[in-house]
Amino acid sequence: MRTKLLVIALAVSALCIFQSQAQTADSGFPKGELSTAKNHTGNIWLSELNVGDSTFDPSIAMATYGAGAKLDWHIHPGGQVLLITEGTGYYQERGKPVRIVHKGDVIKCAPGVEHWHGAAPHSSFAYIAVTPTQKGKTIWLEPVSNKDYDRLK
Amino acid sequence: MRTKLLVIALAVSALCIFQSQAQTADSGFPKGELSTAKNHTGNIWLSELNVGDSTFDPSIAMATYGAGAKLDWHIHPGGQVLLITEGTGYYQERGKPVRIVHKGDVIKCAPGVEHWHGAAPHSSFAYIAVTPTQKGKTIWLEPVSNKDYDRLK
Repeated sequence: MRTKLLVIALAVSALCIFQSQAQTADSGFPKGELSTAKNHTGNIWLSELNVGDSTFDPSIAMATYGAGAKLDWHIHPGGQVLLITEGTGYYQERGKPVRIVHKGDVIKCAPGVEHWHGAAPHSSFAYIAVTPTQKGKTIWLEPVSNKDYDRLK
Repeated sequence: MRTKLLVIALAVSALCIFQSQAQTADSGFPKGELSTAKNHTGNIWLSELNVGDSTFDPSIAMATYGAGAKLDWHIHPGGQVLLITEGTGYYQERGKPVRIVHKGDVIKCAPGVEHWHGAAPHSSFAYIAVTPTQKGKTIWLEPVSNKDYDRLK
């Protein structure tokens, strides 16, 4: 009887751990394709959930970062809201201290503000980005230097 | 030794089951307050993640439904995108068949289209709604009749 209980308990443990890992890695939305753009360092997967246009403006996209991946400095002419769905990351506006952000945080970046965001060094990181498109495309600036990033650890 | 293993395995099982339930009920964003509006039946919790304005248009809100809760028929003058984060629900546009929607689905409702959405009868249901606000407020119509809803089971 005790052996049976042990086997069942071990099986439930294994199943639960497996399920927990799958849920952590999966908000339910597609992870999309590995980005080949030149505006970041490290691995970033992008998945377009809605294409913004003049009828329904905001672009909505899922972005999933490998640990340590980071976007270059950039500007959104129409601003952006980030809904953090997984892990821990960094968000910084030019001239301000870096913010450590977590799953469940909502970040509002005003139009025209220079900023960057990325994963923390040892954490996955994912968000849904809501970006109005009718005021112009993202303007890309210089990369975040490894020296600046490493200083944040 | 076997007793120790059994105790550890049972403890891990209990912890994993507890964690799994917490994750299922929690996208990480606040659940917010129980709605007291007259535009739905059943329990719906609302949490405002971004207030839309003329600088950054879309309103972004989390809505969490108790099993069987449903909004009345309504129209968004600027359209709406729903990002389903939990459970199973129904989405229907006037004159079209109902769609059964699940976690991970993205629904785009065009401006001016009469529609309703709600939880399935025996499932929780939650989404993030992205709603442009500058073309006018939501126009509320009649409730979905229980007869029509029950026919979908």
